[in-house]
Amino acid sequence: MNGYCYVPPEAIVDDRAVLTDGEEYRHLVRVLRKRPGDRVTFVDGTGWVYDGEIEQVGPAAVGLRVTRRRDETEPDVRVTLAPALLKGNRLDFVIEKATEIGVDGIVPMRTARTIVEQDAASGEARRARWQRLALSAMKQSLRSWLPPVAPVAEFSEVIARASAYDLAVIAWEGETLDGIPAALADRPRPRRVLVLVGPEGGFDRTEVDAARHAQVSPVSLGARRLRADTASLVALTVLMTALEA
Amino acid sequence: MNGYCYVPPEAIVDDRAVLTDGEEYRHLVRVLRKRPGDRVTFVDGTGWVYDGEIEQVGPAAVGLRVTRRRDETEPDVRVTLAPALLKGNRLDFVIEKATEIGVDGIVPMRTARTIVEQDAASGEARRARWQRLALSAMKQSLRSWLPPVAPVAEFSEVIARASAYDLAVIAWEGETLDGIPAALADRPRPRRVLVLVGPEGGFDRTEVDAARHAQVSPVSLGARRLRADTASLVALTVLMTALEA
Repeated sequence: MNGYCYVPPEAIVDDRAVLTDGEEYRHLVRVLRKRPGDRVTFVDGTGWVYDGEIEQVGPAAVGLRVTRRRDETEPDVRVTLAPALLKGNRLDFVIEKATEIGVDGIVPMRTARTIVEQDAASGEARRARWQRLALSAMKQSLRSWLPPVAPVAEFSEVIARASAYDLAVIAWEGETLDGIPAALADRPRPRRVLVLVGPEGGFDRTEVDAARHAQVSPVSLGARRLRADTASLVALTVLMTALEA
Repeated sequence: MNGYCYVPPEAIVDDRAVLTDGEEYRHLVRVLRKRPGDRVTFVDGTGWVYDGEIEQVGPAAVGLRVTRRRDETEPDVRVTLAPALLKGNRLDFVIEKATEIGVDGIVPMRTARTIVEQDAASGEARRARWQRLALSAMKQSLRSWLPPVAPVAEFSEVIARASAYDLAVIAWEGETLDGIPAALADRPRPRRVLVLVGPEGGFDRTEVDAARHAQVSPVSLGARRLRADTASLVALTVLMTALEA
């Protein structure tokens, strides 16, 4: 129950891998006290799980021999989540939970009612932090695909990319609408799905109209009003459950 | 988008209601600056939503006249969640999110691998805090039913009550199992459901055997390993989505 190690794909060549990340090294060598001959399971973040054996433990690197490569727990439906920026650390939480539930990628989004301000300088530091949260959640949940966290995008950019997906939906509570299961009925099973979830104050009606225009279907998440962070997780869970069966 | 006020049912008689709670009073009178003649929507926590009009604003109470009583957003499936106690504030989070998603009641549970210790004195204070979190989430999500948070129960007590439900399931990742949708297939639609979710280290196999014996069906929550708090929300979302349609 310790989760996986992570070795980036460029450090794996044929049946040899070299682990150099300081934190991973410390955990493996100092905490778990792994030695040559011990077995280790690791992931490369691109969808593969490796069973390996330690060959050498150096002062700052561990040499591994790959004994088996497999692709285990990844869903064959790929859901990209585009959540609006949220106040406080609520988006951290969304990124952690969405990665556990099985998200394929995350595109944080600025919308009309987004109230979090972010300058360009802090933007990249924050993206890198979110990416580390996704990495940690990937390992914890025994996933082998590292969901990329994209730089913050404008709402208009996100809907402009909707045509690259088999299905794109936007969570909207403005009128009586069908839920996600109804949006999936009577159509071929989508393999790539995009789901947009708004900020604390929801989407603007003009945004929902623009989304419709871009073939993004408004869907209801049910009768109860969900907080923005909860809405992301409910939408993702409903999609994955309906499509992964 | 301000959420509802809360007036306990004993303070509502026929078409008259009296709001006396200090926090609610301050919010209504000092923050929202409501005055006689203003309209207020409130809930009593038993499933009803009231539209009302302020008649009097006293120094510590607000008198209301009820103009309409309705029952709007409550699911007709009643799902009781029994989550194991969790470290830190992770159960706080489960209670908040489960209330938003539509849980009917919450029974915090001590299991074989529960590592949180709790003495009887702190127990009631903690239960009261959880109940306040559920109250706050109920108002936020425009629900009208306040999910009761029960005192902490032993695992054995929870499974002993399973026969009171149409369906009882326990989340278990120990073997290849069907998911919740399969557990719901080929049977009458259950109206009262109990779902048990384990602690960080999962359930013990002897617990799962005891649950089976008590007609509680083990179900998988999918291929990826979910943190205990995430597992509660995923199980609840899948149940509500499948049963509320």
